[in-house]
Amino acid sequence: MSGDTPIRVAVVLAGGSGERFWPLSRQHRPKQLLKLADPARSMLEQTLDRIRPLFPLERTFIVTGTHLAEPIRTACPGFPPENVLAEPAKRNTAGALIYAAAALLAKFGDRNLSMAVFTADHRIGPDERFRQDVRLALETAEKEGGLVVIGIPPARPATGFGYIEVSTTQTGKAARVQAFREKPDQETAARYAVSGRHFWNSGMFFWRLDEFCRELAAANPGLEAVVRPLADALGAKDSEQATSQFSALENISIDFALMEKARKVWMIPAGFGWDDLGTWESLQRSMTPDQDGNVTAGDPVLIGTKNSVVVSDAPGTAVAVVGMDNVVVAVTADGVLVVPAGRSQDVAKAVAELKRRGAKQV
Amino acid sequence: MSGDTPIRVAVVLAGGSGERFWPLSRQHRPKQLLKLADPARSMLEQTLDRIRPLFPLERTFIVTGTHLAEPIRTACPGFPPENVLAEPAKRNTAGALIYAAAALLAKFGDRNLSMAVFTADHRIGPDERFRQDVRLALETAEKEGGLVVIGIPPARPATGFGYIEVSTTQTGKAARVQAFREKPDQETAARYAVSGRHFWNSGMFFWRLDEFCRELAAANPGLEAVVRPLADALGAKDSEQATSQFSALENISIDFALMEKARKVWMIPAGFGWDDLGTWESLQRSMTPDQDGNVTAGDPVLIGTKNSVVVSDAPGTAVAVVGMDNVVVAVTADGVLVVPAGRSQDVAKAVAELKRRGAKQV
Repeated sequence: MSGDTPIRVAVVLAGGSGERFWPLSRQHRPKQLLKLADPARSMLEQTLDRIRPLFPLERTFIVTGTHLAEPIRTACPGFPPENVLAEPAKRNTAGALIYAAAALLAKFGDRNLSMAVFTADHRIGPDERFRQDVRLALETAEKEGGLVVIGIPPARPATGFGYIEVSTTQTGKAARVQAFREKPDQETAARYAVSGRHFWNSGMFFWRLDEFCRELAAANPGLEAVVRPLADALGAKDSEQATSQFSALENISIDFALMEKARKVWMIPAGFGWDDLGTWESLQRSMTPDQDGNVTAGDPVLIGTKNSVVVSDAPGTAVAVVGMDNVVVAVTADGVLVVPAGRSQDVAKAVAELKRRGAKQV
Repeated sequence: MSGDTPIRVAVVLAGGSGERFWPLSRQHRPKQLLKLADPARSMLEQTLDRIRPLFPLERTFIVTGTHLAEPIRTACPGFPPENVLAEPAKRNTAGALIYAAAALLAKFGDRNLSMAVFTADHRIGPDERFRQDVRLALETAEKEGGLVVIGIPPARPATGFGYIEVSTTQTGKAARVQAFREKPDQETAARYAVSGRHFWNSGMFFWRLDEFCRELAAANPGLEAVVRPLADALGAKDSEQATSQFSALENISIDFALMEKARKVWMIPAGFGWDDLGTWESLQRSMTPDQDGNVTAGDPVLIGTKNSVVVSDAPGTAVAVVGMDNVVVAVTADGVLVVPAGRSQDVAKAVAELKRRGAKQV
């Protein structure tokens, strides 16, 4: 490790489980593989398109679960199949990033690397403004050390996101992070939304690999201790040993495992638009509703219906929604969902019940 | 025609168009072919079962449209295929009964016939009480002459039915009909529901064939003039001539064409239970709702949902309804309907729009 210009690599986290957009999303077709924001490109493909000008393909990696590796390789035909990294177990975002770090160490050795971590299932634009912020985040990480995160200026008092609280210490556009705050209650969210010091945690991180290991060793030495042996196992293509090492990891998010405890964290406030598209009704925000407030896909028949999301992905099926208000109707070839807009977080309960019944449509 | 014991024949009207139970019902699978009241038998099969003890099969006839003749023959395998009479055009209930009368004249000549007309898509029971009333209606028609109708004591102030108003003149259990009343407004319906003199028009009629012709000649000579030539054409198996005769008929209901103007009409008050099952939500009346007020078929997943009708007739499709109240969700292999309970009469608008688009799922 030295002071020379680092090699920049991109790691795209694409391990989502696919319950919130059931029946469109499935275990083998989670949200990042859906064409929610663009009818021609999946969220993951859009992510890859967006970062392509910054990272050559051979230095772009996708981290996902074993069951999704092949679906992702198929869904991204131009992407190098060997750069789709399949975690041998489900170990949350800390696990995914430790797996990525170990894989990079195995591939690039102890060269000076800087690592950009992207989510695969958020709506982002314009792309060039996004790339400006990514460049700035990487430069900050490379120059200042520590960990860098992109924060989203809160558009509303959302209770569904973690927040980043910044201090007044700045370096360039980057502000020093004072605390990570868990999902707030409504009152706290309302305060955060207007404070000017609170931002949504985008889940996008930037760091030099050596700094990541150093901070992880300080915050969570048990996790850090796995990085090098896992890298050795991956380098030796000893998948049994790699699985054994990885499976021993605690199932914990990178926020809890590292970010909240790290000694030096910077935040770049996003200068781009961002939507997590976390629920069916979020499509009402991201697509343009018609004069009745409806958002539709797949040409359903709507009679006397307003403020609704009606998505049909079943070409041979006629879908008619009559006299409804504020509802989500989603239809695929083998699944139908009806839920009031604003309650689609409860869809997971229906998916759980289908799993309990042994249904194949999950 | 003479005073000897008449030959009794049954005519089952089965020409419905199948829009109200879309997507379960279709042009080629209208309500009478659905298993709405019994999971094992269609409404039409139940009708045939119910009248079988009164009429031998060879004197039971089904009148329907050309497009439905084959589906009905297939759906009723024990029924004589030649007794399914296909009207060559759509001419409402007056047309259907004139077609039946002509077919009977062609088949039985001028023998003394009495004719019982049944609907094929109503829920009726207990069957033996129903048959008692049918026997009484036939005896009244045969003894008193004129036309006989079965009236349903109104269970609620329904605005969707025509009403029969009776006078105090009685012959046995039969009351003399004073007037036929069209579908009333809410206030009038409320008055009818408690008057004791108003009954729902069941659409079931009983008459001697000669009396039918005589009353029709008096009420509507233009219609009656077609009966004999149509009978001749049918007797000669001259389908071109039959089609030509039949197509010239006015498109009018038997209520407007005959019943309202007839000089002598008797009504038997029904001693049996009756439900027209006219809309999806009527299933809430006829099936037993669970503790949340839901009526379901086909094992859908309901989470936090109440007072709803959820019917799935698509075995490979998982249906989930989450957090809804008072809604109808109907799913088939190629159609999905979502409509508030109480508004399913608007389903016809969706079917019309699908037809306009040239959809094959209607």
